[in-house]
This record gives sequence, structure tokens and C-alpha cells, in this order.
Amino acid sequence: MTTKLTMDKIVNLCKNRGFVFPGSEIYGGFANTWDFGPVGVELKNNVKRAWWKRFVQESPNTYGVDASILMNPRVWEASGHVASFGDPKMDCKKCKQRFRADTLIESHSKGSVSAEAMTNEQLEAYINEHHLTCPHCGGFDWTPIRKFNPMFITSRGTLEEDADKVYLRPETCQGEYVNFLNVQRTARAKVPFAIAQIGKSFRNEITPGNFLFRTIEFEQMELQMFCKESDSMNIYEDYKSKALKFVEDLGLKSENLRFHDHDKLAHYAKAACDIQYNFPIGWQELNGIHHRGTWDLSRHQEYSGKNMTYVDPFTNEKFLPNVIEYSIGADRLTLALLCQAYDEEQLENGETRVVMHLHPAIAPYKVAVLPLQKNLNDKAKEVYSLLSKEFMCDYDEAGSIGKRYRRQDEIGTPFCVTIDFDTLENDTVTIRDRDSMEQIRLNVNELVAYIANRIKFN
Amino acid sequence: MTTKLTMDKIVNLCKNRGFVFPGSEIYGGFANTWDFGPVGVELKNNVKRAWWKRFVQESPNTYGVDASILMNPRVWEASGHVASFGDPKMDCKKCKQRFRADTLIESHSKGSVSAEAMTNEQLEAYINEHHLTCPHCGGFDWTPIRKFNPMFITSRGTLEEDADKVYLRPETCQGEYVNFLNVQRTARAKVPFAIAQIGKSFRNEITPGNFLFRTIEFEQMELQMFCKESDSMNIYEDYKSKALKFVEDLGLKSENLRFHDHDKLAHYAKAACDIQYNFPIGWQELNGIHHRGTWDLSRHQEYSGKNMTYVDPFTNEKFLPNVIEYSIGADRLTLALLCQAYDEEQLENGETRVVMHLHPAIAPYKVAVLPLQKNLNDKAKEVYSLLSKEFMCDYDEAGSIGKRYRRQDEIGTPFCVTIDFDTLENDTVTIRDRDSMEQIRLNVNELVAYIANRIKFN
Repeated sequence: MTTKLTMDKIVNLCKNRGFVFPGSEIYGGFANTWDFGPVGVELKNNVKRAWWKRFVQESPNTYGVDASILMNPRVWEASGHVASFGDPKMDCKKCKQRFRADTLIESHSKGSVSAEAMTNEQLEAYINEHHLTCPHCGGFDWTPIRKFNPMFITSRGTLEEDADKVYLRPETCQGEYVNFLNVQRTARAKVPFAIAQIGKSFRNEITPGNFLFRTIEFEQMELQMFCKESDSMNIYEDYKSKALKFVEDLGLKSENLRFHDHDKLAHYAKAACDIQYNFPIGWQELNGIHHRGTWDLSRHQEYSGKNMTYVDPFTNEKFLPNVIEYSIGADRLTLALLCQAYDEEQLENGETRVVMHLHPAIAPYKVAVLPLQKNLNDKAKEVYSLLSKEFMCDYDEAGSIGKRYRRQDEIGTPFCVTIDFDTLENDTVTIRDRDSMEQIRLNVNELVAYIANRIKFN
Repeated sequence: MTTKLTMDKIVNLCKNRGFVFPGSEIYGGFANTWDFGPVGVELKNNVKRAWWKRFVQESPNTYGVDASILMNPRVWEASGHVASFGDPKMDCKKCKQRFRADTLIESHSKGSVSAEAMTNEQLEAYINEHHLTCPHCGGFDWTPIRKFNPMFITSRGTLEEDADKVYLRPETCQGEYVNFLNVQRTARAKVPFAIAQIGKSFRNEITPGNFLFRTIEFEQMELQMFCKESDSMNIYEDYKSKALKFVEDLGLKSENLRFHDHDKLAHYAKAACDIQYNFPIGWQELNGIHHRGTWDLSRHQEYSGKNMTYVDPFTNEKFLPNVIEYSIGADRLTLALLCQAYDEEQLENGETRVVMHLHPAIAPYKVAVLPLQKNLNDKAKEVYSLLSKEFMCDYDEAGSIGKRYRRQDEIGTPFCVTIDFDTLENDTVTIRDRDSMEQIRLNVNELVAYIANRIKFN
């Protein structure tokens, strides 16, 4: 690609080709929600399947769960989210814009002041002392700083007077911690073992944005590995490698990936790092690997009164397992894969071909069936019907064959099968490769095996 | 099975074998939420995949979407949920129990009075006139009747003063209606075409219950077929057959299934029926097929101001499509499949075998690898590693082989592969069929194809 990839290009392709639409678009949208369209839902489901295959199906000692989004509110007391989740915000009274006080201070001090641990009073004192003005209007008339908790709150009660506060989960991992005993018991699991989950989380964020990168509703793919303290750092390192290999295997290029160790750790954490991807908006977090010590199980033990001690069946040793967390956003990864796959190729005839070089395993359609002429439609539908038993297939009989190839290139379909008059005679078809644009001739009865073999994710 | 199947049996098996745990159980639970455990999450995902394969992948003119749970609140004004969704409730002041006024009247009149269309005033008048007492304590001291809207309400605002009311969707289908234009345009879809979705919905119900049957958070699998009015009744009938065939193909027995036409139709509906399943709690709705006329698109057209007219590319005819809805609960279907699969078999040796005769396509594990002795574990792990590239597999080396077979039977694993000393010599294994308990000997390199062939859902 010769020109720089912008987020706008990706957003436009997504809207025009049916990957992603703005949420509630006919009502003027609903800020920072996005709906996956016909090809987007296939792409995202394939990404989720690839993750599950790698980290659950092929990983011994890893057990899946699918916990409720709505949980007992005590869970969020134990996790610390009720008391101390959120960012310090203040409004400019002149222009009504809202800012994070800590970010303002850190950018004013060019990073030399660490504002994260400051109290609201300390933040306000710094802002007054250094006369930090509004970056938007230049005014100096701030509201007091308030910590805003980004959990969505609803109520379980059915009439107003008996309403109980309930939260939409801001993270999925609590579903694993509260089920630690259940999973360990029913799976007769021995440490080290992991509990994995894919599911939606919700955050009532003030400044989300950048398309799928940050949304108020997002899907996490994550696992919590429970282990002995003495094994924990090795496991942490192990997941760093596995996490990197996974996104590379799906197609993200090494030069667009880097590890980023956290400068500041949560008080309970022993180690934490991200893998960042070089998005069109710059290097941003793609996934995290965190060594959480015994924090989570000890808090739930304290708040629930349930004994979370693990008894080693060989040594009879009793201990609270350490937790290594590996977490990646399904939407964010989907966005990275879309960015990485996007290409504009100059063809010999001077035209530009937009093509999505998606890994075949995650491509929305594996194959498109294209009859070369109208009177071949019946035969084409027969082939479509055969292939759609095995794969997501598209069928297209409208427009010139060149235009139809371009449409499939833009949604990343790895194979196009054209039906021509020879097909009627000898049951052979042309199969075209998306990336090389080369065509070979195959018998119809060889198609399923040929495609199945080329779309594997191992 | 000789004894009657009760819901308790299913609930206990689910808790003990890792299908389903009570939500937030360590905190005393959270009423009417359930967490899917290691085998439950596989079962439910397989059910969802089977539905998607049948109704999206193999269905031409059907396009998937995955819309946000949080939508612009205007969606729920257009759909009628804000104004008129909900049931008339009243409390007994003596015993504090809550009841539905319309249900009380209908049961008092033995069905001769239809209370559904009554206003609150009419309901109260009837209750006073007929002196309807509290079924719980016999008192006659009612609160006024209030309509309770079961939508969960949250707010998008970030500080209290700028909070906007937002709803957790009580149904997924609005995600299809608001994306009608987007999908039609990007997929260049021609009527009749359907938009399909699998996703979570939420209802703040007063009297949910019966395990997975009615929960406050549930997953729907549904599609909306957009069509000409003249085709609509045929399509309605067609989906009745397809819906029935789908659940039969998954293993529900015909004698436990029946159609139930709705007596009362919503004012806009032209036809509506359920398929009911004979659950341990009796005949209950499993899925619905509804002819919704032009209600949905016309409401969204009115409320959004966007023109939803479809222009027929062949005849140039302009019209608002009719909608046929087919909707089935993923949790409810999973429950029905668990009930249908459950069996207690008397063996010749007098023992009872609990076995889940799940369709192999939806069984959590396709195969379990069981080494006959400790010194065969390495070879067994090699076979496990080969198979787990292709299928969800279990691995179990603990306890007698008989006990291990029983454990797999109880979670419905269709095949058990045992590794014995011959395996070391000639690379053959024994493969046991869950249902017939018959064993055959296969070469290790034949296993993948053998199993793949036996677990298909077509």
C-alpha cells in the first residue's frame, strides 16, 4: 500500500461492505456503540472461535465458563469496583468540556509528575498552583473534581420502592473467580489450571471512541490461570509468548506488535504488561497479561466467607492460588486484524484493488460461488448448496466477473469458484486465490477438501 | 427410564457435572441467573452453532448481525416497549405477596373472562365486585394495580445530573429492524430475505424461575424474514416446518413437541404460534413463529423519519415488507435438550447408568481419551493432543475404567478412546460408543475421520 492507512478508510469500508454499522444509526446513532453486519459478525465469531480453539480446546487444564452479566452486587464490592473504580473528572465551567484531572497534570508536567496516586485535594492543589487552564477554551474556572465510577447501574427491583442496585459487569474475569470452587470441583482440576471466558462487559466511559477501539459495550476473551506462587512467574512469561504467537498466527505483523511493561502496578500486582498494536491511531493496548497474586481469591474469600484454599492432592499443601490473567478484547483484536489486512494494490492495468488479506480461518466467507452467465445459475446454486453445508459461502450472480471478484476481495473471501460451460460438461470449476489472484481448475468433488485444508487455524 | 424425570434431577446433574451453576453462588446466588460451567458452555455454544449453521450458513438470503445490547432509547419508544410493555401487578398488604391482577381474574373465572385487554380500573372493579381474595393468606386488602415495565433501566450519563435513561434490550429483534436498510444495501438483498441474530436480552421479571426456563438474562436465536405480503403466509408456514425440523434433528422427540396457536394476537399480528416442549414442568413454549405484518418497519419509519420502503428491482413496485419472525431461546432449548437426553438405564449387572444421549454435534466433548494404566499416559497424551486439534476432548486418567466411562456418559461424550498396551505395539485403540456401549478397534490415524463423520449436524 502506498498511501497511509487511516481509521476513516477502515470505518468506511466497514460501513459500505457490511462489517460494522453505527449502533442505532437510523436514530442518529448511539454514541460508541457499533453493530456488526453480515460479514462483520462472521469475522468476529471466527476470531472468537480461533481464540477458544487455541486457548481452551487445545489447552489441557483450561476450562470454559459463560457467567451471567448480572451478578450479585457483593461481587463488585469484593473486587473493589464499587469503592475505587474510576477516574477523577472536572468540568470547565466556561465551555462545559470535561477533562481528566490526572491526565491534564501529567501532560502539563510532560510526565515528570505522576498524578495517578494523588487524592482529589492534591490534584486540585496542583491545578491551582500551576494555574492549569482549559485546553479547549483557555479558561480557568473548574468545577470540583469528582471521581466518576464507570459501572452502568441498574436495579433488580420490580417496583421503585424495592429496587436494589445492580451493576452491568465492567469486566468478565469475576465470573471465573466466583466459579473457582465450582469448576475446580466438577472438573477435578489440579493447579495449574485456567478458567476461560468470552463475554460482554460494559463501561460507562466519558471519552471512548476511535471506532471499535473503545466502546461502552465490548467483548472480552480472557482466562485466569490459578497456580502455585513458585510457578507463577514462569506461567506469566509463558502467556506472554502464547499471547504474542496467537495474534501473529492470526496475521498481525511482528513490526506492528510490541510488549509494553506497566510502569505503575496495582498494589496487589506482581507484574503486568500489554501487547500493543500499531493502530492507525498509534501504538495502543491490544491485550494484557497480569500477575494478580492472591488478590482476587483472597478478596472473594473475605467477602463471601467461602474458603478458597486449594489442597494439593499430592503434597497435601494448602494455599490460596496465585492468578495469572490473560485478556484480549474481541472487538479491538477484530479492529487490528481489519487494519492489518487492508491493502490497496496497484494492478498492471492501472486500476487499484482494495483487498482484505484476512487469515482464511477468520475470513467471513470462505468461498464465493460465481456463475459466469445467467444460464449457469442452476449449476452454480448446486455447487453453493454443496459448499454451504461445510463453510460460510457467498453467492453472487450480479455484474461482471471482475466486479464480483473485487467485491469478494474487499470482504476478504479467500476463494472464488466460477462456474462456466465446462462445469456442465465435466464438473470442473475454476478456483481463484484472493491473494495471488491465480486460478486453478478443480473437480467439484475436490472442492470441500481443498478449501478445508487451506482455511485451517493451527 | 423407569422413574419420572424431574427438574431437580436435571438441576443436580448440571451442578455436579459442570453444566450449570447458580449465578454468584458463593454470595448466596443472584436470583434467576445461571452460569454455564465447563461442559455447559460447550453444549450451549454447540446449540448456537447448530442453529447458525442451519438458519444462516445453509440458508441463502439470510444475513447475520450482532447488534449492541444498549441502543438509542428511541428504539424502545418505536417498538412500544416504553409505553405498554408489562403486566398489571398488585400486592396483598397483609402478607406482602405480589400477584398479576389479570392472571388472578382469569383463574377465578376459569378462563371465561379475558382480562388481558382490561384497563387497571376495570381490573380493580372486577376484583372488588367478585371479592377476589389473596391466594396466599386469604386477605382482601390490595394495593392499587400498577403496570410494571420489566425493562432494566440504566443511564448513559456519566455524572448524575446528565444521566440519560437507557434500557437493556428486552428482545434482540429490534437490532434487525434498525439495521434493515444497512443490511439490505450492503448485502444487495432482495425480498424475501432474513436478518438473523444470536444475542442476550434482559427482563426484570417478577416471577421467573424453573432453572434455565425463565431467567432475567437470556440468549435468543432469532431471525426476521422480510417479504411481500402475498408471500408472507407461505413463509410463515415454511418457518413452522423448519423450526420443528430443527429441534427434532437436534434430538427432541416428536411426542414431546406440539404446535400451539395463540388465542389472542397482538393488534398488529396476522398469525402467531409457539412450538411447545413437554418439560418436566409441563408443556411450555420453546419457540415462537409470528407474522408481524408491517408493524415493525412502519413504526421505525415513523419514529426515525427514515424511509423503509423496499423497491422491487424487477417490478419497481414499492412497499413496506411484511415480517415473519422465528425466535427460539438458546437457554430454553439447551434445557429441553438436557431433559430429552437424560436417561437412567438398568444394566445387566444391576447397576444404573445415567447417560445423556445428546446429539453428538452438541455434546460438550466429542471424545475422551482414557489411558488404561499409568505407564500409558504419555501415549494417551499424544492421542489427546492429536484429537484436540480437531475436537473438544476430555482426558481422564483417574479411577477405574468403568468409573471413567460413567463420568463421560453423564456428560454425554459420544466416544471414549482407551489406550492400552496394544496401542504401544500397533498404534490401535479401542473406541467405545456412548449409546450402544459397543467397542471397536481403530488405528490412531483413522480416529479423526471416524469421529468427524459421526458428529455431523446436517
